[in-house]
Amino acid sequence: MGEFDLIARHFTRPVRRAVLGVGDDCALLAPTPGMQLAISSDMLVEGRHFFADVDPEALGHKALAVNLSDLAACGARPLAFTLALSLPRVDDPWLAGFARGMWALADAHGCELIGGDTTQGPLNICITVLGEVPTGQALLRSGARPGDDIYVSSTLGDARLALEALLGHITLPPDLLARARQRLERPTPRVALGLALRGVASSAMDLSDGLLGDLSHILKASGVGAQIDTHSTSNLIAVSAYPESARAQFDPEFIRQCTLAGGDDYELAFTAPPAQRDAVAAASRTSGTPVTRIGTVLAERGLQLVDAQGQPVDNRYASFDHFR
Amino acid sequence: MGEFDLIARHFTRPVRRAVLGVGDDCALLAPTPGMQLAISSDMLVEGRHFFADVDPEALGHKALAVNLSDLAACGARPLAFTLALSLPRVDDPWLAGFARGMWALADAHGCELIGGDTTQGPLNICITVLGEVPTGQALLRSGARPGDDIYVSSTLGDARLALEALLGHITLPPDLLARARQRLERPTPRVALGLALRGVASSAMDLSDGLLGDLSHILKASGVGAQIDTHSTSNLIAVSAYPESARAQFDPEFIRQCTLAGGDDYELAFTAPPAQRDAVAAASRTSGTPVTRIGTVLAERGLQLVDAQGQPVDNRYASFDHFR
Repeated sequence: MGEFDLIARHFTRPVRRAVLGVGDDCALLAPTPGMQLAISSDMLVEGRHFFADVDPEALGHKALAVNLSDLAACGARPLAFTLALSLPRVDDPWLAGFARGMWALADAHGCELIGGDTTQGPLNICITVLGEVPTGQALLRSGARPGDDIYVSSTLGDARLALEALLGHITLPPDLLARARQRLERPTPRVALGLALRGVASSAMDLSDGLLGDLSHILKASGVGAQIDTHSTSNLIAVSAYPESARAQFDPEFIRQCTLAGGDDYELAFTAPPAQRDAVAAASRTSGTPVTRIGTVLAERGLQLVDAQGQPVDNRYASFDHFR
Repeated sequence: MGEFDLIARHFTRPVRRAVLGVGDDCALLAPTPGMQLAISSDMLVEGRHFFADVDPEALGHKALAVNLSDLAACGARPLAFTLALSLPRVDDPWLAGFARGMWALADAHGCELIGGDTTQGPLNICITVLGEVPTGQALLRSGARPGDDIYVSSTLGDARLALEALLGHITLPPDLLARARQRLERPTPRVALGLALRGVASSAMDLSDGLLGDLSHILKASGVGAQIDTHSTSNLIAVSAYPESARAQFDPEFIRQCTLAGGDDYELAFTAPPAQRDAVAAASRTSGTPVTRIGTVLAERGLQLVDAQGQPVDNRYASFDHFR
């Protein structure tokens, strides 16, 4: 099977929303009047972002999910994406699985594949996603103000928990491993929450490298600091819902590392003024996405961690940096 | 130097046209009313699209050039691009060179870097480019009609000539090698010609895999065939301008292979009705890009090659397929 057969078989469908999809030099998209385009690119590399033996369907899901997560973080509605794929060889069953995972998520969000590239080389997946947001309503990193509440969506740390287990560093009960692995391999982009937070949140971003590292980008962009309650964040890992016996095997320090700097969560971290607490709760309800208040924005720069009693916790949690 | 320093140092500049550039979850772009967006992605892989020891400045140029070439083929004006980069390690002088080549071409076309991704892995460059074109005016592959003239811009085959020399398959005089290598490593996206051909050309595409293979996409999309004069195409390689002594060393068959199926030319192939010959000549003049008429669109499917005397030439010229 050659390059064009591969594209025709796995990656070509008629477009409905776009003017022109796969098959010409460019795709064509007609933007909705009054909307701004939100654009983001993410690249996934074998051995760095996923294991070589990962289920291709999960990988197809994740490659698109991490991009949709960026749109969610801006409060943008997904429109379309391009897929550039470097493959060591044409492996038809693998491609079919990858495409199945990708299309399922794309269809769930009404996001169309409009173009891309395929080439031979080390396995590498680069997706660029396009969404739209009403002019001036995008959720940015720069809007956090002193006194704002800090929230995260859903859970934290499970992806890291699964990674540690898959690397053989820890052992998890099978049901916990299955649940954590699902979070690592099939993250849920919080698109509905992002849309519901337009006009409610003062800033937002998605968590890919770890809560503290990612949050520091909001703080820097907004020129503020923050205090984070590590008791509330430690309760956001799946293991915390397990009986005492399962939980006792984990060092609280390890749990903090997973939840504060675990990476690969693809949850939203966002800020909102206390006056918006009811609106945040409503956004959580309408989007079907739990949110938890984990701290407060401070005027003074820096990131302070406190425990359940409000006592300082030493910040030794390093987030992920691709070149460190 | 970590990931964020790398981005800040080499790949961050204030944007003028975009609403928001590098540094948030998404970039924001405000499309011009009445325009459609043209979008294309191209991925370049070390060892497949370029040699490991290629001049990084040339590589930065080429990575963007092949994407701008897709916009040119649609008659779209470049607006912005995202850059996703997988790097084995942080090599500051290499990155500085790559960035220099990329920015020079981006500035020449008023095309802004608005976002992207950096990660560690085998060297891989994925650029997604966005342009705009007035609604309904994009040059597509599907518009060729029987009787239309077929043209190509500038030269053909020099990139392949350089590749054969760099692979040690042939020896070229130093000045010819330098000239051919320039075409391989620093292709010129024909953006100005693409813009000038709006409303003039009936179809267009850019030549990346070789004239005959790429032209077959136009023929298939338009439901037509074509006759190509291989005498005119053989005259489009740089070597043809050289004295008889330099030219004599090349088998005419080899010259045909380079010009008809060489790949990496990044010239435009386009069709236009004979009534538009003056308009094509004017587009060539205003864009400063030579064009040559090389054949005719036929109602009957298939691609016929003829020599200077109109005699059939056997078509044995295979174009580039990444998976064959």
